[in-house]
Amino acid sequence: MRKVPNRILLTEDRMPEQWYNVRADMPSQHDPYINPATMKPATMEDLTPVFAEELCKQEFTLERYVDIPGEVMDYYRLYRPSPVIRAYNLEKYLDTPARIYYKYEGSNTSGSHKLNSAVPQVFYNKKQGIERITTETGAGQWGTALSMACAHFDMPLRVYMVKISYMQKPYRKEIMETYGANVFPSPSDTTNIGRSILEKDPENTGSLGTAISEAVEMAVTTPNTRYSLGSVLNQVLLHQSIIGIESKIQLEMVDEYPDYVIGCSGGGSNLGGLMSAFMQDRLTGKAKPYFIAVEPSACPSFTKGRYAYDFCDVGHITPLAKMYTIGSGFIPPNIHAGGLRYHGMSPILSKLYHDGILDEARAVGQKDVFDAAVLFARHEAILPAPESSHAIKAAIDVALECRERGEAKTILFGLSGNGSFDLAAYASYNRGEMENYAPSDEEIAMSLKGIPDLQGI
Amino acid sequence: MRKVPNRILLTEDRMPEQWYNVRADMPSQHDPYINPATMKPATMEDLTPVFAEELCKQEFTLERYVDIPGEVMDYYRLYRPSPVIRAYNLEKYLDTPARIYYKYEGSNTSGSHKLNSAVPQVFYNKKQGIERITTETGAGQWGTALSMACAHFDMPLRVYMVKISYMQKPYRKEIMETYGANVFPSPSDTTNIGRSILEKDPENTGSLGTAISEAVEMAVTTPNTRYSLGSVLNQVLLHQSIIGIESKIQLEMVDEYPDYVIGCSGGGSNLGGLMSAFMQDRLTGKAKPYFIAVEPSACPSFTKGRYAYDFCDVGHITPLAKMYTIGSGFIPPNIHAGGLRYHGMSPILSKLYHDGILDEARAVGQKDVFDAAVLFARHEAILPAPESSHAIKAAIDVALECRERGEAKTILFGLSGNGSFDLAAYASYNRGEMENYAPSDEEIAMSLKGIPDLQGI
Repeated sequence: MRKVPNRILLTEDRMPEQWYNVRADMPSQHDPYINPATMKPATMEDLTPVFAEELCKQEFTLERYVDIPGEVMDYYRLYRPSPVIRAYNLEKYLDTPARIYYKYEGSNTSGSHKLNSAVPQVFYNKKQGIERITTETGAGQWGTALSMACAHFDMPLRVYMVKISYMQKPYRKEIMETYGANVFPSPSDTTNIGRSILEKDPENTGSLGTAISEAVEMAVTTPNTRYSLGSVLNQVLLHQSIIGIESKIQLEMVDEYPDYVIGCSGGGSNLGGLMSAFMQDRLTGKAKPYFIAVEPSACPSFTKGRYAYDFCDVGHITPLAKMYTIGSGFIPPNIHAGGLRYHGMSPILSKLYHDGILDEARAVGQKDVFDAAVLFARHEAILPAPESSHAIKAAIDVALECRERGEAKTILFGLSGNGSFDLAAYASYNRGEMENYAPSDEEIAMSLKGIPDLQGI
Repeated sequence: MRKVPNRILLTEDRMPEQWYNVRADMPSQHDPYINPATMKPATMEDLTPVFAEELCKQEFTLERYVDIPGEVMDYYRLYRPSPVIRAYNLEKYLDTPARIYYKYEGSNTSGSHKLNSAVPQVFYNKKQGIERITTETGAGQWGTALSMACAHFDMPLRVYMVKISYMQKPYRKEIMETYGANVFPSPSDTTNIGRSILEKDPENTGSLGTAISEAVEMAVTTPNTRYSLGSVLNQVLLHQSIIGIESKIQLEMVDEYPDYVIGCSGGGSNLGGLMSAFMQDRLTGKAKPYFIAVEPSACPSFTKGRYAYDFCDVGHITPLAKMYTIGSGFIPPNIHAGGLRYHGMSPILSKLYHDGILDEARAVGQKDVFDAAVLFARHEAILPAPESSHAIKAAIDVALECRERGEAKTILFGLSGNGSFDLAAYASYNRGEMENYAPSDEEIAMSLKGIPDLQGI
């Protein structure tokens, strides 16, 4: 028997009962959201028409720990704690002295970590007496997670699904409908912003930014309705902190601590969650793990974007956030990691990266990512989601660097989701049709020009 | 904190290291397989051209325990032990005094329990120096599991996939190919049986029986090639016994013992595995749990079939087995529980049922099964496979009977797989298109007539 088991399991009696708020330990905070109507810092009053009150509080709070409500714990226990897995087979194949661990969030029915924030978001809305939630979904992970949480709390849900995904991923729509959600292809004729886009371009296949605009418009114009977002926001990073808190306990159980913490980053929910407890150690001087954010070269907000105020949506009805952005008008190519096709980045992660605390961001190409994904699938017996495979690619690269240097480092990466709904992507890879892709410098420069000039604020 | 956690987790150091062979404790054995060429009991020599030698030995052995090889244990640890889950939410919804537990085998990438037998089957072939494996798959669970095991042991694999599934479930084909398998739609032009079927009927969409014939023909006519089967056989029930052995340990951890053990049954691999350790208790007089096999009313081998010798395939090239059969020529309607569309039944389970030891078999309709599946999905946050949902339906019925009688019984059922690849089925249900279906008495009588008359053997 090996000293470290393959799967490090945590029993539910050891599951964390509080979320950790990284803002409490940050040396300085991100610049405030800006209300586009007043161009002044957004207040609670600006946000409460959009989000449930408790969630607005969480968006602003600097408390270090927030109790996880009992009703949320009850749902978490249906699928948590999730395992930390030692990648023995991958280590052996790579012939590396590094020890590779991954936190696997993909074994629940939604297929990803998104459920961790969907459950509390629906709970707080229900508690407030909200009668309907709206949201958007791109690849479908968030919409599925929110549908499951809404089914549990008996909350009607309307999902605006990016039209290209709606057409290409009918099964994602079906699983949301099985859990009781109403799913509309976006742009739709149910909102002003949707109608105006369709008027100009009836064939428009949608974008995450457009779907966000539609869902927010529907929320603020319908009585007793609120909007729900699966990434980017501070509240989401707070909820996702359970990933990192559990991971730290699990690694402690086998006397390990990560030298590297690696996560894919689209809007930041996965990386922000995974790093939480380790970032606390870093910020309080207890340890100094090295953090790597991995993004697609097709949508490189960290590595090619600008740290600036920008809108979170295409329709420019949401508040502006100070963040790394490639421009809200940027149309990323239709790569298969749909969950990473977002122009912006969590304000918290952006601030940490800007301040040199989140150590490194890497952009990786789609073909290289799938090479890593298939290698991982064959050795570790889990088919990874394309999004998560960005972290696999970087973890493999770090493990190979360790081999070169003869260093027995400990690597922790986030396997945030499984690939069961991404077989069309694997089919494309199997047929040899996949290529690395990166927008040209001209395309990026053009998009960055669209970022509003708010240097004076 | 509840006394019984939601998920009863077993750590890998407590994972069973031996399979249990129920035949060792059966009061009498099933009648021998018959070689159709000689019409005499099949011998080791008859079977070794088809299966690896060690697997042939396991087909015949009466040893009580068989050691699980270290290489198989290494793979098992990638995804096992699987959890036993207490269905608190479902109990509450049903307002039943019964305690409902389920063993969940669906959180690995193959999506079902099939991996438990795929791994040892490939291992024993590899150990013997076999250079290629053939198999068939219907819905795709078995083909996926075998592809994963073959990727691990570096074994080439050829899969004959029922043509209707090949066309309707392209993603199942893609996942097998991602793991390196070659997938052919059956009937194909690569075998004599396939060609002869296509000659008579070029539009033939295949059946599990035809795909078995093709895979066996390819195995016995290709040098150093063997065939692999995911259900029905004694060796498969042996490997699947790990499900029941783990379940018993997990229930003991919370001071429970099942009054009811409920599993869906197509060829018998799932039910045979789940019941193993509990059937041992029953056969040795230690306990008397009540066993229920649940089959689709569309393919009712236990409840409407005959206990007789019949062929295992359409082409009649496999040995005959004494089993409950609805006739090898029976063409079950295209229900969504593809894994249960088999005309026969495990000889071991057939014998136990014939002798009144496997207590009861129930046939349930497809619409009723999906009602239960969606109810389960919304309350327990797992989307179940249509096959497994047959067991859910029966478990709910038993729990409601307990409510009527005011009995706080303990129910254990097998949730053998997840429904991530069955969204087309859920779509049909969501659109209200699903109906209960059962073949008419005339159809069944006609099919039973085709069973060969071997009463004299």
